Amino acid sequence: MSADEVDYVSGRTRLFGIVGHPIAQVRSPEMFTAEFKARGQDAILLPFHVLPEDFDLVVPALMRMPNLDGLIFTIPFKQRAILLAQEIGANAKIVGAVNALARTDGGWRADIFDGLGCVEAFRRRGFSFKGRRVMVIGAGGAGSAIAVAVAHQGPALIRLFDVDDVRVAELASKVRIVDSLITVETGPARHEGFDVLLNASPVGMLEDARLPIEATTFDRSLIVFDAIVKPETTPLLALAERSGCVTVRGREMMSGQISRMTDYFGLPTGKST
Amino acid sequence: MSADEVDYVSGRTRLFGIVGHPIAQVRSPEMFTAEFKARGQDAILLPFHVLPEDFDLVVPALMRMPNLDGLIFTIPFKQRAILLAQEIGANAKIVGAVNALARTDGGWRADIFDGLGCVEAFRRRGFSFKGRRVMVIGAGGAGSAIAVAVAHQGPALIRLFDVDDVRVAELASKVRIVDSLITVETGPARHEGFDVLLNASPVGMLEDARLPIEATTFDRSLIVFDAIVKPETTPLLALAERSGCVTVRGREMMSGQISRMTDYFGLPTGKST
Repeated sequence: MSADEVDYVSGRTRLFGIVGHPIAQVRSPEMFTAEFKARGQDAILLPFHVLPEDFDLVVPALMRMPNLDGLIFTIPFKQRAILLAQEIGANAKIVGAVNALARTDGGWRADIFDGLGCVEAFRRRGFSFKGRRVMVIGAGGAGSAIAVAVAHQGPALIRLFDVDDVRVAELASKVRIVDSLITVETGPARHEGFDVLLNASPVGMLEDARLPIEATTFDRSLIVFDAIVKPETTPLLALAERSGCVTVRGREMMSGQISRMTDYFGLPTGKST
Repeated sequence: MSADEVDYVSGRTRLFGIVGHPIAQVRSPEMFTAEFKARGQDAILLPFHVLPEDFDLVVPALMRMPNLDGLIFTIPFKQRAILLAQEIGANAKIVGAVNALARTDGGWRADIFDGLGCVEAFRRRGFSFKGRRVMVIGAGGAGSAIAVAVAHQGPALIRLFDVDDVRVAELASKVRIVDSLITVETGPARHEGFDVLLNASPVGMLEDARLPIEATTFDRSLIVFDAIVKPETTPLLALAERSGCVTVRGREMMSGQISRMTDYFGLPTGKST
């Protein structure tokens, strides 16, 4: 390499992209590309800005480039993207949305990893949800994916809360589909009698000083997770720390998700070149 | 930026691409991206592998991404790409091919820079072709673009040689269209009585030890250019150096072309972010 060349892109670099609208705020390009690089792969993940009215034209066209190996989907495309793949993963079928599309031998497969990242973050801490009593706050996109992924691990009880009653009822039925042995409850958020508290609502994000649950202290045996990435220590996590609880952060979920998705894209750990 | 992020791509990075088939051998990604970076721009140029049968589907789709600002075309797409733009540059109209497509306010413009890079390389040496006697060897894609770009500078004489008689006759008429005052000759390559000798044929590339012209020495006043990039010193340039001539290298043409094309893409020198 001479001084008038960069070392991070060449004619041999494999392409990945995140498809969204808007696109400027996404963090996947810098984070996934770092994961690819850490694995010694000559690959890069790019921001692909696609307008909603162009989705059906542009995304199938991108998929025809032989050096493009995978796509990530974000707002507002997670539902529509499910139609692009021949193979749909079990989680994606239940959630009804995908966020990753990977090239296979003859076509494309898709799955959703929003919830698996949470499960992976707990697994890295040596924790399994099997037999546990789990409170999930928030039944939107993130909450649904997390509840379904957790359900696959066979917890004893999942209690769901969301400000939207319809949404929480739909999620409850999805969780029952995953495993009919799980006790599924809906209603106000509780922490007493639970092993794990998972927040997947936006309450506590950025300047929001509120807690997503009524509480002044937690039992120190409770494990508290917050999907929010900014701030790193949400009001919920601050209360959990003051209560002496183990906490799991949004960033750990993101890191777990990046690792699982990179596996899904078929990028091995070894050097490719 | 934390350790698990790279600093060369983000959601705000502007996209450019080189479209070709095959694609692995192209050098534009590392070289253009270095030029963008040197200008303080948050932009990257990627390899876009497009199969010939997919061109009409994939390239217009890529152009619909609002964060894609320009494309470069290489083999085998330089002729077809002319249909993608609303505005076609003067050089491209005469050559009948484009290698750069840039977003404008309401659409796209296209032009060919293969020859302008050569002219730019000479300009940087303080040399103009105006009034000069110029020998051009090779009337293929590169030779045509070079002869047309040189013709725009108003040389006194252009003599053209190619192993293909039809091709050389076609190029001669294109050069006459640019400027009817230029004396245009065709026939065997000569160096006596010329100010500049330009090689745009593949003779002398890689392991080829041949000269593109019959000669054992040159007059030291002759300026000798070779469009070949590998090897850096071709047999022709070696002979020119032994003869005491000024030489201009393929790499200087490429560098001149990158600079002119980056201007064309509308990327200013200042910081964009």
